[in-house]
Amino acid sequence: MGASLNRRELIAAGAAAAAAGATPASAKSARRRRRRTFDVVVVGAGLAGLTAARAVRAAGRSVLVLEARDRVGGRNLDHPLAGGDGVAELGGQSAGPGQDKVLALAKELGVATFETYSDGDTVYYRSGQRSTYSGDIPPANPAALVEIEATILQLNQMAAEVPADAPWKAPHAAQWDIVSIADWVAEHDNTQEARDLAALAVRGVYGEEGSQISLLDLLSAITGVGGDFNTLIGSAQSIRFVGGPQQLSIKLAARVSRAVRLRAPVLAVSRGTGHVVVHTAHDAVRARQAILTPPKPVLDRIRFTPLLAPALDQLLQRQPMGSVTKVNAIYDAPFWRGDGLNGAVVSDTGPVQIVYDNSPPDGRVGVLVGFMEADHSRAQYAVSPAARRAAALQCLARYFGPRAAAPRDYVDMVWDLEPYTRGAYGEFNPPGVLTSLGAAAAAAPGGPLHFAGSGWSPQWPGYMDGAIRSGERAAREALAGL
Amino acid sequence: MGASLNRRELIAAGAAAAAAGATPASAKSARRRRRRTFDVVVVGAGLAGLTAARAVRAAGRSVLVLEARDRVGGRNLDHPLAGGDGVAELGGQSAGPGQDKVLALAKELGVATFETYSDGDTVYYRSGQRSTYSGDIPPANPAALVEIEATILQLNQMAAEVPADAPWKAPHAAQWDIVSIADWVAEHDNTQEARDLAALAVRGVYGEEGSQISLLDLLSAITGVGGDFNTLIGSAQSIRFVGGPQQLSIKLAARVSRAVRLRAPVLAVSRGTGHVVVHTAHDAVRARQAILTPPKPVLDRIRFTPLLAPALDQLLQRQPMGSVTKVNAIYDAPFWRGDGLNGAVVSDTGPVQIVYDNSPPDGRVGVLVGFMEADHSRAQYAVSPAARRAAALQCLARYFGPRAAAPRDYVDMVWDLEPYTRGAYGEFNPPGVLTSLGAAAAAAPGGPLHFAGSGWSPQWPGYMDGAIRSGERAAREALAGL
Repeated sequence: MGASLNRRELIAAGAAAAAAGATPASAKSARRRRRRTFDVVVVGAGLAGLTAARAVRAAGRSVLVLEARDRVGGRNLDHPLAGGDGVAELGGQSAGPGQDKVLALAKELGVATFETYSDGDTVYYRSGQRSTYSGDIPPANPAALVEIEATILQLNQMAAEVPADAPWKAPHAAQWDIVSIADWVAEHDNTQEARDLAALAVRGVYGEEGSQISLLDLLSAITGVGGDFNTLIGSAQSIRFVGGPQQLSIKLAARVSRAVRLRAPVLAVSRGTGHVVVHTAHDAVRARQAILTPPKPVLDRIRFTPLLAPALDQLLQRQPMGSVTKVNAIYDAPFWRGDGLNGAVVSDTGPVQIVYDNSPPDGRVGVLVGFMEADHSRAQYAVSPAARRAAALQCLARYFGPRAAAPRDYVDMVWDLEPYTRGAYGEFNPPGVLTSLGAAAAAAPGGPLHFAGSGWSPQWPGYMDGAIRSGERAAREALAGL
Repeated sequence: MGASLNRRELIAAGAAAAAAGATPASAKSARRRRRRTFDVVVVGAGLAGLTAARAVRAAGRSVLVLEARDRVGGRNLDHPLAGGDGVAELGGQSAGPGQDKVLALAKELGVATFETYSDGDTVYYRSGQRSTYSGDIPPANPAALVEIEATILQLNQMAAEVPADAPWKAPHAAQWDIVSIADWVAEHDNTQEARDLAALAVRGVYGEEGSQISLLDLLSAITGVGGDFNTLIGSAQSIRFVGGPQQLSIKLAARVSRAVRLRAPVLAVSRGTGHVVVHTAHDAVRARQAILTPPKPVLDRIRFTPLLAPALDQLLQRQPMGSVTKVNAIYDAPFWRGDGLNGAVVSDTGPVQIVYDNSPPDGRVGVLVGFMEADHSRAQYAVSPAARRAAALQCLARYFGPRAAAPRDYVDMVWDLEPYTRGAYGEFNPPGVLTSLGAAAAAAPGGPLHFAGSGWSPQWPGYMDGAIRSGERAAREALAGL
C-alpha cells in the first residue's frame, strides 16, 4: 500500500483477543461477540460499501463493515502534499456533470469541488514532434480528425440502442459482442493517427488495450454515462474535490464510526439458515444479510459455501481489471501555466501518454498527474521504482521542458500490485461475455447476498458515482430482505 | 463430485491429529511432521501433478502431493458401469496419434487402448431434418462445404507461422489477437451452415463460444497439435482407454503411494528463505520446491506470499475455463450399430449437438456420450437434474429414435459446478491476452514455484498428453532447483 491516511485501529477487542490466543475471559467475550448477529455485514470500505453501511444505519439497523486494508477508500487514495495544503490523488480523482450522486454526497459531507485547471493550451506529441493546441481538437492530420469524428458519432448512434442495464438485449448485441474495440477501430479508421488516438482514448477509459474489450461493453458504458463517448474522455474528468475524494470515504466511515473494522480481509462466506457468516483470518461475523463490494477479481477469491451459482462463477472468471500506474510529480509551482499551457498532454509515446494539471485549487504548488495504462503500465513491471520514476519524468520533460524532470516530490501507485484491487480502472467485459453471461450478473447473487461496487453499476460504471449508486441499491435490497 | 473411484484415505496421521485437536502426544508428532521439509510438494493429483511426483520420486527425492478432492485424476473421472465391465468417462477420455506421452504412459502402466467405434454412418441434423452420411464430410450445402474446407486450409496456413510456445511472436500476432474466432469466421464464411459448423467445431475444442476466444489462441492450438485443425476435431478423439483413463492417475498414485494426501485443498502458499510452505485448512507443508497444477481460475484463488508477479496476477484474471456438461446414456446394447450407425452426431440443435459411441470395447452394453458445450451448457444451469436429463435424452431420441429415450442408466457431469476445476475443457485466451501477457506466462513464476497442468503445455494444450508434458517439465525445473 502507498500512503495511508486513516490508520485508526478499529479492530474490536474480542477479535484481537481471538487472534492473539484467548485467555478464559477473552474467550468468553469472543464467544459473546460471535453470537451477535448483525443485520447487515458489508465487505469493503470503499464508497460502495460505506454508502451501503450508512443507508443501513440510517434505517435503524445494525451494520459492520469489514475492510481488508488498513484504510478506507478503496480505489480512492490521496497523498498529502508536504507543506500541508492539498493532496495528490493516487487513485480515482474526478467527477463531472451528471454524476449527481457523488456531487450530492460531497456537498452533504462538506467536501468542496473545483474545476480541473484548463486555461491555456494542451500539448500534442506525435512521431517525435511536440505541438500545442487550444480547445478540444488536437492538431492531428485532417483525415484522422474526420475519421475520429465519424467514429465517435457512430459509437454514439450504436450506443443509443444499448440499454446500460441489459446490453445483451440490444438488437445487435450478438454482432457487437463478438468484436473487440481494437478490431472495430481497425475496421473503421484507416489512418494510423486516428487508430492511435482511439486506442489512447480507450486506454484512458479502461486502463486496458482495446484488443481485450468487447465493443458491446464500450457501447454500454457510453449509454451508462448519458450517451456520448466524449463524456468518457472529457467532461467526466472536469470536476475535482478540494482536499481529495478519499475524504468522502473517511467522512462516511466516521458517520458509521465503530462499525468499520480495518485489516480484516474476508476469506470465506457461508450461508446458514436465515443468516450469513463472513470469515476473516481471525474472526467469523454473523449477519442476516451481506453486501460484498470488492472488485470482481478480488470477490472471485472469496470461498462461498454453498458455491455461488455457476453462471456467477463463470462470470467472475471473465471480468478482469485493467492495468494502471498513476504518477504524480510535485513542483514548487505550476510552471507550465506561465508558459501558456494547461498541463494536459495527448501523446503517442509512452509510458506516460496522458497528463493533466493536478495542482491543488490554490495553485501554490504545481502537480502533474500522468497515467501509464494497459501495456504501458505492464511494461514497467520489470523495472525498479527508480527506473519507473525516471521513465515518467522523461516523458514529462519531453512535454514540458527540463524543469519537469526535477520535481520536488514524486509519488506513484501501481494499482496492479494491490491484492485487494488487482488493477484499475475497473472491471471490463472481454468479447462474448456479456451475451453469454451478462444476464446472470443482473440476477446475481440472490438470497441474503448482495454485490456492489462501481463495476456493478449500469450508470457511471467504474466511477465513484457508480460505486455510490451500487451501494444504495445493495442497501435497499438488503434492507428489504430483513 | 460425481462418482468417486478412489476413496482410500491417505491423510497422514499427524494431519488428522492436527485437524481433530491435538493431544500432547499428537501435538509432538505434528510438530515433528511440520518440521519435515519435503524436497518437492505438488498441488493437485491429476495427470500433471502425479507425473511430476513420479519423476521427483524417480530422482530419489522426497515428494508430497496435496489433492483437494477425495479422489485422484482431476478432469479424468470414470463412472463404473453396473454389471462390472467397463466405465463411462465423465471427463477427459480420448487420445490420438501424436499424443506420444499419454500413449506411452498407458503402455507402461498396463492400460490397453482401443479405437473409438466408427463403423457405420454419422447422423447429421440440421433445420429439423435428420440425415446420415459416411466418412468425414457431412451432407451440408455444397457452398458451405467449400467454405469450411477453405476455412480450415486458411487456419492451417496461418497457424504455420505461429509458434505454440510463443504465439505472441508470430509476425501477424497483433492482427490475429484482436479478433475473436467468431468474428473471424463471420468475416470468412458467408453461409450460415458453414458458420454453424465452425461454431460447433470451436465449442467442441474449447467448450466455449468462439466469441470469447482469440483467433491467435486457436492458431496456437493448431500448431500445438501438429499443424492441422482437423486433428483437433477428429483424430485427437480416435483412441480410448480400456477401463477408462482415470486408471492412469490411479496407477500413478499407487506408485507414489503414501505421498498422496486427499481432501487437502490448498489455500495459501508462502515463500521463505530456501523453502516454500503450502497451507491447507488443517496443515502447513514445508518443501524446497513446489509444483502447482490446478486449472488457472483455481490457481488464481490461492493466496501467495509474497504476491505473484503482477503480470501473472493479471494473466490469471484473464484465462477462464469453458463450460461443459458431459452426459452418458447407457443402454443394454449399442442398438444404433444395428441400424448402420456409428453413434456419432453433428447437429445444429442443442443442448446436445455432438454425440459419440462411448461403449466399452466389447460392446456388451451400449453407451452414447453427448456434450452440452458453452452457452448450451450454461442454459441448463437453471433447470433441475431431471430436466437436464430429459433434455439430453430428447436430443438422443431425435438422433437415434425412441429407444434412445429410455436408457437403462444415465449419468452426467456439470464440470462448471466443480470448485476445483471451474469448467471445461480447459483454459483459453480471450482476445488481446496473449499479446499483452503471454510472454509473462512463459517466464512464470520463477524461484521455487513451478506451474503445470494441461493449460501450460504448448503441445497438446488441454489434453492428457499436454498435462503429462507439463508435469515432466515442472519436475525437471524443480529437480534442477534442489
